[in-house]
Amino acid sequence: MDERMTKKNIYNAAIFLFNTKGFSGTSVREIAKQANVNSALISYYFKSKQGLLESLMETFYDGYVEKIEQAFERSELLPIRSCLHKAILSLLRYQQENNQLARFVHRETTIDSTLTREVMTVYLRKEKYYWQKIFEQGFRTGELHKRNIDLTIIQLKGMITMPFSNPQYVQEIFHLSPFEDYFIRQYGLHVLSWLDERFCRQKGATKKEQQKAEVG
Amino acid sequence: MDERMTKKNIYNAAIFLFNTKGFSGTSVREIAKQANVNSALISYYFKSKQGLLESLMETFYDGYVEKIEQAFERSELLPIRSCLHKAILSLLRYQQENNQLARFVHRETTIDSTLTREVMTVYLRKEKYYWQKIFEQGFRTGELHKRNIDLTIIQLKGMITMPFSNPQYVQEIFHLSPFEDYFIRQYGLHVLSWLDERFCRQKGATKKEQQKAEVG
Repeated sequence: MDERMTKKNIYNAAIFLFNTKGFSGTSVREIAKQANVNSALISYYFKSKQGLLESLMETFYDGYVEKIEQAFERSELLPIRSCLHKAILSLLRYQQENNQLARFVHRETTIDSTLTREVMTVYLRKEKYYWQKIFEQGFRTGELHKRNIDLTIIQLKGMITMPFSNPQYVQEIFHLSPFEDYFIRQYGLHVLSWLDERFCRQKGATKKEQQKAEVG
Repeated sequence: MDERMTKKNIYNAAIFLFNTKGFSGTSVREIAKQANVNSALISYYFKSKQGLLESLMETFYDGYVEKIEQAFERSELLPIRSCLHKAILSLLRYQQENNQLARFVHRETTIDSTLTREVMTVYLRKEKYYWQKIFEQGFRTGELHKRNIDLTIIQLKGMITMPFSNPQYVQEIFHLSPFEDYFIRQYGLHVLSWLDERFCRQKGATKKEQQKAEVG
């Protein structure tokens, strides 16, 4: 087995165990057993369980922030509305593709730890910056109605992460699967129509999408 | 110290430790030390650390579901809009008043455990039922625009819990405090104006509130 595959196995085993038994409730030995590797390999690649945790957080947030960064880079060229739509949909899809990791990372980010504070400084501050810049440009060009940016980002962030931090809630209470494309399309359109109704001056083009999203 | 005060001390110590070190990372002995009680008392009241966890979850969700139940009971008498407003604001306030507990419980509810499944069955299914009934009555009387109920509840739930499952995010990134009345008023109005724009046919009465909420 090559290094990439081995690491991937270790990641998957760790995520599975952390999601069922919690981080502190899981030992390096259990991860090694679940991944079918020697536990010395985990020490070799990640130094410790804490090192593995940091690596998982970095992996997730690197990809996450990249999505919003890409949307920001397009914001000079594209209409703000389609730029925001792309950002929201690509963040939903990214979390869907990495759903077990997303679930774990979102939970871990609610713990008051040194690592969480680093994640805030390195990643979440950047994420907020990009959202803010995109919205501000929309206010400037008149494409968006002016609203309180901070509260909007908190609200949007809640909507975007909810199905992936609480997949079990979505599955057991609503019998919907946040891991399926169908859900992403439906939920995505639902969030986008929130955006359109709340911010966009030109709603005409979205009527069809909204209707599609609202057929319950 | 009477029983009520002792239990309260144990609760507070446990919540503090669970929020900083995680559930598995905290021992009964540490909780006893932090609460300044003999650890035999914890066994006496709660049987085990797991029993203490269950008691915390019950305490939180009993109060939480009661708020939405009260709103539901008023929904026959009051206009649906003010009934929804009351439900949202009282849930925000309830989480603010019990913010350390809320933070812990929201995180714990994302773990795939037997306890979480029980919480879903006993509490979250009930919560969903009440939201659904309130919205459906609004659709029936024509007070609300018809929307997909499931996706709306998921979206609303994300908005209502976000500041309390991620208080550190709100504090460090936005320099807002989800524990202060000022935040609850501002954020509450922000969520209510989402509701009004998205669902309510009569918006006239809320113009003033919306403006207040949107002064960034």
